Amino acid sequence: MEDVCRLFIDHSSAILDKDGKKAGYTRSIWTMINLNAHEPADLLTLHGGSIVDYVCNESCPIEKPSCIEMTAGKPSAKLTAKCGNIDTSGYTNSIRYIGHILGLFLIQLYVRKQIQRFEMAYMAESCYGDELFFSEEEVNEDEYHVEIEKNDYRAVYHARVRFV
Amino acid sequence: MEDVCRLFIDHSSAILDKDGKKAGYTRSIWTMINLNAHEPADLLTLHGGSIVDYVCNESCPIEKPSCIEMTAGKPSAKLTAKCGNIDTSGYTNSIRYIGHILGLFLIQLYVRKQIQRFEMAYMAESCYGDELFFSEEEVNEDEYHVEIEKNDYRAVYHARVRFV
Repeated sequence: MEDVCRLFIDHSSAILDKDGKKAGYTRSIWTMINLNAHEPADLLTLHGGSIVDYVCNESCPIEKPSCIEMTAGKPSAKLTAKCGNIDTSGYTNSIRYIGHILGLFLIQLYVRKQIQRFEMAYMAESCYGDELFFSEEEVNEDEYHVEIEKNDYRAVYHARVRFV
Repeated sequence: MEDVCRLFIDHSSAILDKDGKKAGYTRSIWTMINLNAHEPADLLTLHGGSIVDYVCNESCPIEKPSCIEMTAGKPSAKLTAKCGNIDTSGYTNSIRYIGHILGLFLIQLYVRKQIQRFEMAYMAESCYGDELFFSEEEVNEDEYHVEIEKNDYRAVYHARVRFV
């Protein structure tokens, strides 16, 4: 745990090889959902705020996520969430979002370049039967922002894809 | 190899557990494509037809595939083959066909029943950018036939899905 505030935990981890040498890293931001209230819990009041004692001072070379801004655009693709898109919790699976976002780009791009970074931020969940609308915005030659909206054009998911 | 004729091999295999006991089976039909001519090879003329010597007498409890007949129907779903649907040979991956076919059925069906058998037959390949049209036909309460056609409504793929 790198850092914690009222609603979010900055979480990172290192993947060690058999000799204990760092071979890879992960970085994510977590929130704790109260399953009864369906709202994020205030982490600093739970257990007398002792969660801050678990912050450790390990560094992680993966760049922190930043705000992904989108200017309203016309959706370029539409998808209805089907059985195969839904996980056991009843919500659309992140891997499916990623798969559909990668499908927005032409194969010619993948022939010339590879993905250096894929950043994602959740605004809401989507469920079985939801209509999902995908809009992408070219920020520059190597970076694209993608927004997924559902039904009433409520934002579900923002992604940043950087090619190199 | 259970059987061989001019163009097709009936292939089956058993999956053994650590004690050598049969734990599962596979069944498939293969054809050998001449990569220069892009046509199936005549198996009985290659190597003096010695392929017949490899037919063995093991039984496989999986029912043999049968002809999947379709009456022309109106497509209920459409998909453009994207990067993520294509495998390294440049053709749409079978797993993607299966995933999209399973998505044609309502989640209520999966709640009540499970798939007992999924049978598939290829008529043609589809490639990146092809428009794919899906039509399904309810044969009876537990059995559906699905056809995938491409672009000019040429049949690509027939499937039979049996629920139990």
